[in-house]
Amino acid sequence: MKITTGTLADGREILFFDRADTLRVIEDRRDIEPVRTRSEIRHDSLADQWVAVTAHRQGRTHLPPADECPLCPSVGDRLTEIPEPDYDVAVFENRFPSFALDVPDPPETGEELFVRLPARGRCEVVCFTSAHTGSFADLPHDHARLVIDAWAQRTEALSALDEVEQVFCFENRGPEIGVTLHHPHGQIYAYPFATPTTAQMLRSARSYAERVGTNLFGDLLAAELRAQTRVVWQSRHWAAFVPFAARWPVEVHLYPRRQVPDLAALDDAERDDLAETYLTLLRGLDALFGVPLPYIAAWYQAPVRHHRDLAWLHLRVFSIRRAPEKLKYLAGSESAMGAFINDITPEDMAARLQTVMGGTPLTTVEAIDEGTS
Amino acid sequence: MKITTGTLADGREILFFDRADTLRVIEDRRDIEPVRTRSEIRHDSLADQWVAVTAHRQGRTHLPPADECPLCPSVGDRLTEIPEPDYDVAVFENRFPSFALDVPDPPETGEELFVRLPARGRCEVVCFTSAHTGSFADLPHDHARLVIDAWAQRTEALSALDEVEQVFCFENRGPEIGVTLHHPHGQIYAYPFATPTTAQMLRSARSYAERVGTNLFGDLLAAELRAQTRVVWQSRHWAAFVPFAARWPVEVHLYPRRQVPDLAALDDAERDDLAETYLTLLRGLDALFGVPLPYIAAWYQAPVRHHRDLAWLHLRVFSIRRAPEKLKYLAGSESAMGAFINDITPEDMAARLQTVMGGTPLTTVEAIDEGTS
Repeated sequence: MKITTGTLADGREILFFDRADTLRVIEDRRDIEPVRTRSEIRHDSLADQWVAVTAHRQGRTHLPPADECPLCPSVGDRLTEIPEPDYDVAVFENRFPSFALDVPDPPETGEELFVRLPARGRCEVVCFTSAHTGSFADLPHDHARLVIDAWAQRTEALSALDEVEQVFCFENRGPEIGVTLHHPHGQIYAYPFATPTTAQMLRSARSYAERVGTNLFGDLLAAELRAQTRVVWQSRHWAAFVPFAARWPVEVHLYPRRQVPDLAALDDAERDDLAETYLTLLRGLDALFGVPLPYIAAWYQAPVRHHRDLAWLHLRVFSIRRAPEKLKYLAGSESAMGAFINDITPEDMAARLQTVMGGTPLTTVEAIDEGTS
Repeated sequence: MKITTGTLADGREILFFDRADTLRVIEDRRDIEPVRTRSEIRHDSLADQWVAVTAHRQGRTHLPPADECPLCPSVGDRLTEIPEPDYDVAVFENRFPSFALDVPDPPETGEELFVRLPARGRCEVVCFTSAHTGSFADLPHDHARLVIDAWAQRTEALSALDEVEQVFCFENRGPEIGVTLHHPHGQIYAYPFATPTTAQMLRSARSYAERVGTNLFGDLLAAELRAQTRVVWQSRHWAAFVPFAARWPVEVHLYPRRQVPDLAALDDAERDDLAETYLTLLRGLDALFGVPLPYIAAWYQAPVRHHRDLAWLHLRVFSIRRAPEKLKYLAGSESAMGAFINDITPEDMAARLQTVMGGTPLTTVEAIDEGTS
């Protein structure tokens, strides 16, 4: 892998991840002004969570026609966000970020319960391929591996920023969940706080470690492998299952067998295996209802500085689709009360996934390596 | 108010709330079998939250044409869920409930981390009016007051059930959030656990009370009234504001000035005032974008048995609409990480609501009655 770094016309950073030793000049000939980011995070003292408030993103690009796609390579006079005639994987700073390093301090509120801070962090766009159509599932193995290496490199680089507390690599796929650009791409959010979901999981893991002495994530993985009924795929280094208490009609968790805090900590063999396993999983998900599945694929990584021994890197892919023609909406119970109702049992969904993924899960329960926990 | 209780053909309970002394016979002439509810709640040990898993609701009624609406009165041979030729407000047990009193025990898992329990509780449908078209905002004042009295009566009755830990009265409005029946109606969920959102708020309130000595909800209300910038309506007994850390593009919290645990504890004057205030709020929300607003209106009530002195009844109305043609989707950051990004500042939204609601908020900060806190 070769990494080439450049700067877009408005000062944003762009990185190219190439399989070959490609020479890149990177000259953005557009005349675009920097977007002034004015985001802040506000503390919700009832939920004890941070909420980001932005006021500059309402005008962002919304489902442009294919010939105006900003994620395609720049060809001739059609200048896009990618100032190169072709690329393998490209990562650049989002022009309409929720978090940025240079946001100004918001004014003080004068109220102790109203705490606001600048939303310092970073938001990046990850272009999986220069091909406008298709999706991650269509990538060849070595290209998927390149995306994984890009995620790992960005995790490491963003984790080194003082402002960043957690790095989140994810993909939103499908117009059903509001994706505004069709070109296959993901995003990376580098948050200035540990996210609410991660913070809650780590509270549970700490309490469990104090009480039981072992790692909660590892014990959950071991219990799923013992139960077998919800396991949908196993490889040498990874295991995928529908979790016992799945919230979404389609929900798969993919764990490395070895406890690692983040993608950067995966070794070469684990990354190769991940590329194959993840492609198998995504292809299975698209086969589930006979239509491309709208999904969120989310990497749960340890916070940058805290509780790295309690965490356990894993991926969750989930969907709001519950039937070929039906979506699950988050209504009162979920959105207001946080109480999820899942209309498909995890065991039923696992059986359907086992069928479409075409694999019989390994019946041998392989050892879990709890590492330093 | 007169309450008449009856039984539907499959054994479910139905209640009529009438303004006048209406005589009701209640004879359900349909030939329908009881639906066997097989729901369970499963403990998500990472989130430390309960998730309900149901397997019998996939076949539920989905946007029937108006002449098949099950919430209209029964007229002639057209037999609906309401076996009366007319009604004011009717409440009945949901035919496809997520929680029911008679669900069987699920089998044991044999794993300590996989805890499952029967989803015992109750789900009710609240028909706001016999008129198929229109919405809550169109109700006259005395009819809105009747709905409030019905909510209060149901809260009290459901709170008396041993299985129930929290009663949640809510309305999902609009096909954009997946509403399957257009007839103006709400729902009541009587959960066998304190909901995740409520549990989290009460943890914050307890920690605040120990540290500061006062009620967190009351202090937040007082701080919003002092700040004034986000207050959208004030009446003698109620105050409505966009919260400092609003998650949703449209989000209004409506608090009684007096600390009460639930709707049943509201006195006559507070209920009358609520009817007027809530109608004003809903009409303002529909005027916001010039199109009926899809919304979730959710009553946050104290758990039935615990922490009633820490809680403070309030309503939250929020919407995924962020512009006349645009919805906010919960994608990776919100759905996977619990980290909300709000693209409209609470102050901007409050100013827009102040305009459409046509009222100048009272500038006098009225006393907050923290009651027993």
